[in-house]
Amino acid sequence: MQLKKYRKQAQSFSVEGAKSVLELAQSSFEITHLMVTKPFWEDNEKSLKMLEDRVAVVTNKQLTAISAFKTNEAALAVARFRQHPPWEVEPDEYVIALDRIRDPGNFGTILRIADWYGINKVVASSDSADYYHPKVIQASMGSFTRVAVYHQDLHETLQGMTNIFAAGMKGEDVHKVDFPAGGVLVIGNEAQGLDTSLTPLIHQTVCIPGYGVAESLNAAVATAVICDNIRRSLNTN
Amino acid sequence: MQLKKYRKQAQSFSVEGAKSVLELAQSSFEITHLMVTKPFWEDNEKSLKMLEDRVAVVTNKQLTAISAFKTNEAALAVARFRQHPPWEVEPDEYVIALDRIRDPGNFGTILRIADWYGINKVVASSDSADYYHPKVIQASMGSFTRVAVYHQDLHETLQGMTNIFAAGMKGEDVHKVDFPAGGVLVIGNEAQGLDTSLTPLIHQTVCIPGYGVAESLNAAVATAVICDNIRRSLNTN
Repeated sequence: MQLKKYRKQAQSFSVEGAKSVLELAQSSFEITHLMVTKPFWEDNEKSLKMLEDRVAVVTNKQLTAISAFKTNEAALAVARFRQHPPWEVEPDEYVIALDRIRDPGNFGTILRIADWYGINKVVASSDSADYYHPKVIQASMGSFTRVAVYHQDLHETLQGMTNIFAAGMKGEDVHKVDFPAGGVLVIGNEAQGLDTSLTPLIHQTVCIPGYGVAESLNAAVATAVICDNIRRSLNTN
Repeated sequence: MQLKKYRKQAQSFSVEGAKSVLELAQSSFEITHLMVTKPFWEDNEKSLKMLEDRVAVVTNKQLTAISAFKTNEAALAVARFRQHPPWEVEPDEYVIALDRIRDPGNFGTILRIADWYGINKVVASSDSADYYHPKVIQASMGSFTRVAVYHQDLHETLQGMTNIFAAGMKGEDVHKVDFPAGGVLVIGNEAQGLDTSLTPLIHQTVCIPGYGVAESLNAAVATAVICDNIRRSLNTN
């Protein structure tokens, strides 16, 4: 489950940690296996009752042995991939497009940010981190159950869409942009920024004004600051 | 150098990666040892000329062997701790106070955010991640050379200070706060939030409005969004 090719083969992925497993159980994902420690099961037996036939109670040591992380003292679930509805964007909806966001921690944090700001669709280039990567799941803190990720070609996806904004080092000051009711926010690779072949598809590049010396902000941090400015702008109108 | 007690003993710390080492060399930190790979040295010999007497050219393999990370193909420097000037805050200056920010990645990212927003002093409780931890240094992307971190008691530090804002789940909407010219932004522990014994010292708790279902934002992300709102508010006045 820690390798993409095995996840793909099994059409399944693993979810670890108390919070994520509990959120998974309440979502529409189908859990096929659940490994829990005794204390975790005793604390959450009621809310996980429907999974009783798939539960194995194991020791911390056993759980850690199959974990993708250093320790796991709560639970690990295996769930089936979920089919999203076909990609479609409403005119008054914001979505996020990720161009080669490779770090799974960044990717998962962006899902959490999207969820916070009421964005529930993310399109990601196929060379971005994988939606079902254990570290993506972990960093999203349960938001992976609510934000649908579409791994598909960005050129095709953005073609013909309206209000496409990209985060960049140069562009319109995000504090001054009057954001429309819906659109796309494109976030480029952590080190290289946006793929230049995407540039012709962008309607406006927005930048976050800096007041110090740091060269840039982390990709997830930039996403949050821009989403915050979008919401703030929409509330003012 | 990877363990706090040895760093303390040696009064030194290590800095890895091309960007961080180059920024270190341009800062007031004193570099005592520098290990470089041949390609890195050839690319940067001019800007590192003054360190020629302390350089050892090593192989990727040798460098990775002493690295705190999975790989290091560029450089590793050892530098002495630097003495900051005594803690003092100007009336028109913002500083950040970190209450038990334990994750070194978050801590380093917050230094990078502070540097972006022109904040160059951070006070952190002694049970926060250590300023000189290799992952703090790495995540700060060079900003550790420009942002001074004071590990000292937060109660004592905040006592008598003015305009102390804390990030919280409940409080005044950060979009509506009219921020004064200077003050303190306090960020609480990733999981537990602010230590309740600090609450009486806080003048105003501010919250970031959410529009979705996620329970919270990552501590570093929240820091950035609030700093952005502070700068935006100051520019409007």
